[in-house]
Amino acid sequence: MNRYEKLADNIAQRIRAGSLKANDRLPSVRELKSQMGISASTVFSAYYQLEAQGLVEARQRSGYFVRAGAEMPTNELAASEPVLRSMPVDVSSLVFQVLAQARERDMVPLGSAFPSPELFPFEQLAAGLTRALKRMDPWQTVEDLSPGNAQLRHQISLRYGSVGMDVPASELVITSGAMEALNLALESVTQPGDVVAIETPTFYGALQALERRGLRAVEVETHPRTGVDLSSLARVIDQHPVKACWFMPTFQNPMGCTMSDAAKEQLVSMLATRAIPLIEDDVYGELAHGARRPPPAKAWDRAGWVLHCSSFSKSLAPGYRIGWVAGGRFAATLGRNKLMSSLATALPSQLALQEYLQHRSFDRHLRALRHSLSRQQAACLRLIDRYFPTGTRVTRPEGGYFLWLALPEGVDSLALHQDALQLGIGVAPGHLFSADRRYTRHLRINYGHLGDPRLEGAIRNLGELANAQLKSTTGKSGPIFEERSSRP
Amino acid sequence: MNRYEKLADNIAQRIRAGSLKANDRLPSVRELKSQMGISASTVFSAYYQLEAQGLVEARQRSGYFVRAGAEMPTNELAASEPVLRSMPVDVSSLVFQVLAQARERDMVPLGSAFPSPELFPFEQLAAGLTRALKRMDPWQTVEDLSPGNAQLRHQISLRYGSVGMDVPASELVITSGAMEALNLALESVTQPGDVVAIETPTFYGALQALERRGLRAVEVETHPRTGVDLSSLARVIDQHPVKACWFMPTFQNPMGCTMSDAAKEQLVSMLATRAIPLIEDDVYGELAHGARRPPPAKAWDRAGWVLHCSSFSKSLAPGYRIGWVAGGRFAATLGRNKLMSSLATALPSQLALQEYLQHRSFDRHLRALRHSLSRQQAACLRLIDRYFPTGTRVTRPEGGYFLWLALPEGVDSLALHQDALQLGIGVAPGHLFSADRRYTRHLRINYGHLGDPRLEGAIRNLGELANAQLKSTTGKSGPIFEERSSRP
Repeated sequence: MNRYEKLADNIAQRIRAGSLKANDRLPSVRELKSQMGISASTVFSAYYQLEAQGLVEARQRSGYFVRAGAEMPTNELAASEPVLRSMPVDVSSLVFQVLAQARERDMVPLGSAFPSPELFPFEQLAAGLTRALKRMDPWQTVEDLSPGNAQLRHQISLRYGSVGMDVPASELVITSGAMEALNLALESVTQPGDVVAIETPTFYGALQALERRGLRAVEVETHPRTGVDLSSLARVIDQHPVKACWFMPTFQNPMGCTMSDAAKEQLVSMLATRAIPLIEDDVYGELAHGARRPPPAKAWDRAGWVLHCSSFSKSLAPGYRIGWVAGGRFAATLGRNKLMSSLATALPSQLALQEYLQHRSFDRHLRALRHSLSRQQAACLRLIDRYFPTGTRVTRPEGGYFLWLALPEGVDSLALHQDALQLGIGVAPGHLFSADRRYTRHLRINYGHLGDPRLEGAIRNLGELANAQLKSTTGKSGPIFEERSSRP
Repeated sequence: MNRYEKLADNIAQRIRAGSLKANDRLPSVRELKSQMGISASTVFSAYYQLEAQGLVEARQRSGYFVRAGAEMPTNELAASEPVLRSMPVDVSSLVFQVLAQARERDMVPLGSAFPSPELFPFEQLAAGLTRALKRMDPWQTVEDLSPGNAQLRHQISLRYGSVGMDVPASELVITSGAMEALNLALESVTQPGDVVAIETPTFYGALQALERRGLRAVEVETHPRTGVDLSSLARVIDQHPVKACWFMPTFQNPMGCTMSDAAKEQLVSMLATRAIPLIEDDVYGELAHGARRPPPAKAWDRAGWVLHCSSFSKSLAPGYRIGWVAGGRFAATLGRNKLMSSLATALPSQLALQEYLQHRSFDRHLRALRHSLSRQQAACLRLIDRYFPTGTRVTRPEGGYFLWLALPEGVDSLALHQDALQLGIGVAPGHLFSADRRYTRHLRINYGHLGDPRLEGAIRNLGELANAQLKSTTGKSGPIFEERSSRP
């Protein structure tokens, strides 16, 4: 982390924690120079970054001030309220129906699961692949079968090493994206009928994976900023025969929440004590908006109970389908399951990533990507604030590219989704994010499509549709699906 | 098919059927010219091909004669004898142990599942990929998600069309190799605990897939030349609640047998009548040694009960991991299962294959590949005949790159495998090819490694090891695993 990034990060944290409040003036360049001995250009760079993130604003001749709404908003969502019984999962049909619509290029992709493909270095990846294929030894088609190309695994291991994590290359299995990694992890630690603990709301892909394997889900209370509530988890484990947890401790989908380092450490040790495997989905981990990449829970895994899954699909190379899993004590089982399920991962993709990681600066690309996403989040929040109904609550994640919105009572987000489709706008209705479809007035909004000129119009349209629903439902019939919880 | 290929094919079939016998003289060029009105060069080309295949030989000043041993050998294996009860499958550990050893480059790869990687046009594939990546639209990373790149599916559909099969692109799902296709097919038509009918002996990957999904296997009598015995299948279906069949009707692994067109047609209609899905593994279909590519069973699928799986991994592009499934009436379910299991197939690999199929001659490559494999089979059969114990029986497949050997009673092929390892030779012991490990004196030999100068020495060593076992077991203890069937 650069000096200016450190400074910006430090100030951002104080704003989010509320110790710097709206309209507070930031220290002047001169003050910081004398207090901390840092150069004027460092201070300017930090303030410029904070401004781009929408956290501070320059007022003419007065200096830099904390923006109104930059602190953790008063309209923050409350922690989710889990359903206490475990339940079978049946959400796939709805998910497929919604996702199929998100594939169309003409649709404003607010419901998409992917950031804009224009954010990625495809030319550099292609150039590297061309070089690598020229050197390729035909025997690699045999030798680079699972667990995968040794140099690629080495590069991934090195990258973990650079944030202080010891993940040896021998623990890694290269997979066809994180989705395969997660499915293999689930297969390695559960049998059909078992109970798996998940966050609520949670990534619909996790729900589908549970459904596909015939597993039961039990939900754990999840805070929109700090993630899994550990005392709720302890209760769930006491009351249910939980065979595994499937969590996203960093920049969770859909809420964007991140557990603190201390909470991650405690989570890992709590589960290790009870011999419960943790399937960690870390696909958004590299997309921190600040300069610090929060360490995955795997960083505290000494006993090997964490099956850590990730990929390059969100951070570097969508479409290449390169993911991996560090399986801890389950690594050997995982490797065998990979061989049985798809034998091996595509060699050209492996070579392209290996070549890129060895010869290009992944960090330089990530810096630009993170900065873009951060700036775009601020813009998207402003539009939501302007156009959405009063009483709409929204997350303000420190990474990733999703916002999670709770609209006022009376809005049905599935109906909203259907109306929006007519206008060529895709959104992900809250119904997708729990086994019992109870997030009926929630939306996940993707802000990862920078520079799409249709963005403002689409958000305005969505806001108008929601307001129209509110007017028409006042005193009329309720939403399409009965709401089972009034919170969040 | 060229004129000379047709002629050669016709003669080869007559030799294999026994109507032309060892030492029979083939018609002279003049005779054929006058009888059939074909040119001398056509006849010479046909005879040259038959000679290369080891079926005929030129004798000085006398003309061409059928080689001794070219007819279907008298030492042909008998049809397999299935176990009549269904049984759970537990063969994975042994398979992994054996396969891990086959990965080492120093090992003579007689046990490998892959032909020599030096047989494939990697430079052309790479050049096509480079061109395709230059043109790639970043949005393809979203649009070419499952079911896969539309042009690639179109090319595959066209190829089926060229052999008279109607497989629309919309029925195809692109997968990470055939292994994923087969697993997705199995998942789409079975639940854990169901009974699946398989050939015996059968591909260990099928056994692993059944084991992984908790399915029970029931075996069907399989002839080493003509494949699945339909009356045995009818009995099995009457006696067991068979939920699906998993067969390789063309160039089966390990025996290389191929069902006749008529038998395939009858198989498809028998299963359709009973509403039983057929999972067809056709990965070796393109590797016919003669000029005719036997049509897959799918060619007769009018009611959509055939889930036809294949890939380019054995025929064109190992390591690229591009397979597909034409799911018939299960196509939509298959597409959803693909999305849930690994989301999508690697885009660079899809583009490379699409580009190759569109701009290069797959058929020209295949002609050279088939010719090489055919020549090498003849050489390998001669070596086995020379060095293996008297009484060894062996298949003579018309495609693929495997021989299946039954050694005399007293040989244990797992012990042979272990002894061979010490000499740097890999083989696939028969134990891998049934759920109850009963092919204890059988070997699968890969002859797809052309030009490996170690081949003759390795076959000689194997023969010596087998002969030594026979000497030492005469009057001594039996093989490591008790043999449960005396046939084949």
